[in-house]
Amino acid sequence: EDTGYDCSRLTARLPFLNEADKLKLVSRASKLGDGSRHENSAEHSWHIMLYAWVLAEHSPSTVSTDRVLQMLLLHDLVEIDAGDAPIHGVTDPAALAALAVREEEAADRLFGMLPSDQGAPMRAVWEEFEAAETADAVYAKSIDRVQPVLLNLLNGGGSWLDYNVSLPQLDTRVGGKVNRGAPEVWTYVRAQIEPWFRKAGRL
Amino acid sequence: EDTGYDCSRLTARLPFLNEADKLKLVSRASKLGDGSRHENSAEHSWHIMLYAWVLAEHSPSTVSTDRVLQMLLLHDLVEIDAGDAPIHGVTDPAALAALAVREEEAADRLFGMLPSDQGAPMRAVWEEFEAAETADAVYAKSIDRVQPVLLNLLNGGGSWLDYNVSLPQLDTRVGGKVNRGAPEVWTYVRAQIEPWFRKAGRL
Ligand SMILES: [Ca+2]
Repeated sequence: EDTGYDCSRLTARLPFLNEADKLKLVSRASKLGDGSRHENSAEHSWHIMLYAWVLAEHSPSTVSTDRVLQMLLLHDLVEIDAGDAPIHGVTDPAALAALAVREEEAADRLFGMLPSDQGAPMRAVWEEFEAAETADAVYAKSIDRVQPVLLNLLNGGGSWLDYNVSLPQLDTRVGGKVNRGAPEVWTYVRAQIEPWFRKAGRL
Repeated sequence: EDTGYDCSRLTARLPFLNEADKLKLVSRASKLGDGSRHENSAEHSWHIMLYAWVLAEHSPSTVSTDRVLQMLLLHDLVEIDAGDAPIHGVTDPAALAALAVREEEAADRLFGMLPSDQGAPMRAVWEEFEAAETADAVYAKSIDRVQPVLLNLLNGGGSWLDYNVSLPQLDTRVGGKVNRGAPEVWTYVRAQIEPWFRKAGRL
């Protein structure tokens, strides 16, 4: 019988959505605000989407919030295969290059599960985020970077303690990217975190 | 000095974003696909945003995916104060009415943390979702309801076992809402879950 729906497109889509569930099992370096446990990449993605929406007026370039939300919704999916690389943990260029290869393979596999007329544009959104060239991607990257800073401040140090991070290291690894996409936010947040690094003797 | 940014708007926004972090601590009735633990409301929100985007063409009404994503991003925030009410656990009308009051109070508090020209339109998005009248809200609700069904199927029964759910109960509590916003999806998913209920003697 003709049920009036295209069975094959749902047959491709539901396994993709089931596979995406695994992002909830990818643990990040940052801990929740209350320090009770590490954050996972799915809930992190949700949180930074809220950040991106709430902070959008602090982007110096005009951005499409809708497109930024799409980027952030997808941006960590490849971690299902490639894992999360802590920003203060993986800094070696060779390791980062190997990771980029694993992430491309993950994108092939995951976006390849969808009907191609859907998977290809979604993959393009992810590639745009990774390239960090468009205004939307630059802003999205700044939001992805600033959220763990706020979590660390909330929980008393978090990954700064675990990875023995100094303020100059944070400026290099995080500040530059946040400053590029959301300079007002970085100015504000940096003033809030400076006392922590001062007190910890990590200036 | 004039730093060129409006300090007071960030001063309101960052505490809101810190508060939102607590949604990661709200546990839901459903378990992850691998059954290893219960899902929390933040990662659930992320997952259903991906659902909504991927399945959008199965909405019989034309929907704005961007607006649906906004709804789903915000839809569970009130659970930070009001908690999650399991759909198969809280069915008493008086309890549901009391919950609705707690959720309104939560919306007052949480959206009230933002600058009012931002908090008010966000709250309106949440109210639109709750009212389930517009095409966007009807579709968003259908997605919110169908995702736990897929998780239960993946992990071998999940909350259907915990709450002793029959297929007629599922049809009433879940199927009607999914069918309203995404009938093709419900037809497809119901055919997939029927064997589980048959085997479990829960038809
Ligand atoms: Ca809910």
